[in-house]
Amino acid sequence: MKPEDARYERGLAKMREMFGPGIDSALKTLAAISPDLQRCLVEFPFGEIYPRSGLDAKTRGMLTVAALTVLGYAQAELRDHVRGALNVGCTRDEILEVIMQMAVYAGFPAALEALRTAASVFAQDP
Amino acid sequence: MKPEDARYERGLAKMREMFGPGIDSALKTLAAISPDLQRCLVEFPFGEIYPRSGLDAKTRGMLTVAALTVLGYAQAELRDHVRGALNVGCTRDEILEVIMQMAVYAGFPAALEALRTAASVFAQDP
Amino acid sequence: MKPEDARYERGLAKMREMFGPGIDSALKTLAAISPDLQRCLVEFPFGEIYPRSGLDAKTRGMLTVAALTVLGYAQAELRDHVRGALNVGCTRDEILEVIMQMAVYAGFPAALEALRTAASVFAQDP
Amino acid sequence: MKPEDARYERGLAKMREMFGPGIDSALKTLAAISPDLQRCLVEFPFGEIYPRSGLDAKTRGMLTVAALTVLGYAQAELRDHVRGALNVGCTRDEILEVIMQMAVYAGFPAALEALRTAASVFAQDP
Amino acid sequence: MKPEDARYERGLAKMREMFGPGIDSALKTLAAISPDLQRCLVEFPFGEIYPRSGLDAKTRGMLTVAALTVLGYAQAELRDHVRGALNVGCTRDEILEVIMQMAVYAGFPAALEALRTAASVFAQDP
Amino acid sequence: MKPEDARYERGLAKMREMFGPGIDSALKTLAAISPDLQRCLVEFPFGEIYPRSGLDAKTRGMLTVAALTVLGYAQAELRDHVRGALNVGCTRDEILEVIMQMAVYAGFPAALEALRTAASVFAQDP
Repeated sequence: MKPEDARYERGLAKMREMFGPGIDSALKTLAAISPDLQRCLVEFPFGEIYPRSGLDAKTRGMLTVAALTVLGYAQAELRDHVRGALNVGCTRDEILEVIMQMAVYAGFPAALEALRTAASVFAQDP
Repeated sequence: MKPEDARYERGLAKMREMFGPGIDSALKTLAAISPDLQRCLVEFPFGEIYPRSGLDAKTRGMLTVAALTVLGYAQAELRDHVRGALNVGCTRDEILEVIMQMAVYAGFPAALEALRTAASVFAQDP
Repeated sequence: MKPEDARYERGLAKMREMFGPGIDSALKTLAAISPDLQRCLVEFPFGEIYPRSGLDAKTRGMLTVAALTVLGYAQAELRDHVRGALNVGCTRDEILEVIMQMAVYAGFPAALEALRTAASVFAQDP
Repeated sequence: MKPEDARYERGLAKMREMFGPGIDSALKTLAAISPDLQRCLVEFPFGEIYPRSGLDAKTRGMLTVAALTVLGYAQAELRDHVRGALNVGCTRDEILEVIMQMAVYAGFPAALEALRTAASVFAQDP
Repeated sequence: MKPEDARYERGLAKMREMFGPGIDSALKTLAAISPDLQRCLVEFPFGEIYPRSGLDAKTRGMLTVAALTVLGYAQAELRDHVRGALNVGCTRDEILEVIMQMAVYAGFPAALEALRTAASVFAQDP
Repeated sequence: MKPEDARYERGLAKMREMFGPGIDSALKTLAAISPDLQRCLVEFPFGEIYPRSGLDAKTRGMLTVAALTVLGYAQAELRDHVRGALNVGCTRDEILEVIMQMAVYAGFPAALEALRTAASVFAQDP
């Protein structure tokens, strides 16, 4: 196995751990548009950053929910990462707590948009 | 003591815990410009959000570092909150790890700006 | 009545004045997801900021339309606040004027997104 | 012809070149909401900036795709400008390349949102 | 006088009204870098938007303070526009009130950055 | 040579081409703070994205100037990339043209901030 492949495999394993096996078809859809961006996504965020040992998966999940809440426009990614955060051990209350704290740093509209997105994820698995 | 005062006192205690006793003179400076915004700052973020029990102080510190890294323009607040995160138990490596993860969500310029700010805080107390 | 309750009641009254009685069911929906963020929303922006005497309700309405136009991603909040601005006395032309001015500060995409949102509100009550 | 009219005509011609004749009805819809913002849009970006000789149309098209990818919230404008970039000679691969580069500067969520928008444009004319 | 010149003259007059006669040397500095962007700045924001009759100068001044507070990174422009807002009749308290309201929509860091900028303007003319 | 090393070497060569040999000491400073983010920066943006064949170096340089102008807060990175764009063949006029176009998409404050940064780079090598 070439080192490049190792990085890809590590990223793919991390994505399956976070997002569940459904991620495979999402990655296939993405690869049909841009195989290179798909590969970058697997290799860099998930193959290099998330597997690092400095922070546990739960903390990383909450940090990403915070980041996407602040950005505001990336509700599709937030939906995936709320699901991902739940999968790696965050509770619903913790996710809501993260979103509420972001009202201080990015304002209430950012928090309210994120809250609705989180609620739509929670509602799918009541 | 009136309930309003209780909220202010709780916020002030939280700010001293996070930023050290130097916060008192910073708040005095702020109050000289806008006593009302100063009061809001103590009461809402620090009197209502940070003291909530749902997340520990260390996690909240990292979330705020993440948020300010994503915003990009608020390096003065980031400097305070890097110091605050260290005071509530985050290690330097954890703070750098948070900033590195933000490169994925807000891009490398945001991470590099935050890294320089964190480094300037670390350098003051080597 | 406890002071906390007074703040909540003041915020609720302000929200009804701005958004009409329909706000009650929107707040109930929000409270079902996060009662704490719902309470913060009523108490801080609407119980503390909007009732302040320093600016009249019409000016505050226009400022919020400006802010949400600049943010760009918060069209759901903008829709509510366009309606709110009309309710506190802004004319449609004033709202369009605010949005046009924002093209200078946040660019044409921000203004065009806001314009479509404002138009969708205007269209509901021709 | 008055000079104001010349600027408007130049902008309209540029918009038709970039977006095709369908732009006329889009401009009519916009003018029904705000004739003044519609006129500004034709005259300033398209009547003054795009016709400038300093950069060719293809480069300008790519720059706008970059800008809208970074903004993140303006997917409706991005859709129009992906189509416009194709019309002035950009290839699909070049547009994807621009979007991928933006992952570095604005993060992966911005790139992924833009990628989906570009793909939806590409899919309409396979 | 050609209509283009009329627009420029109108913009220049508006800028002098807002920023005082010192604006002439600032415009000269800007023109030495990019005469075209300098001309666009005078003609579009100040020659077309600000002179419109739909909103009074004071309201426009407050809207711009709001916009620049939300953007966060444009403290140099904010400094000019705080001075401009004072020149067209806003009081210091009104400017602080605008900034405080923005804490709700863009978060406390945006408001605190703007507050410091406003204070630095106020301090120059105590 | 291991593939990881190849990627790092490719990124380093690209950075030297863009920013000149002075980049080595800047990277050393960065590595002293966070060797891991330093390595990511060399490997991902410069080792993977910039060397791709889909766009020439000049176009990539202009796209990055556009992106950093839109972000607004990253003037330190913009300074480096204005220099980099000049090094890979962009003219000063082309860089100013990119910045002017961004006034349309991110507003005049973003363009003015970037213009001042570009001017400060131009002034160092008159």
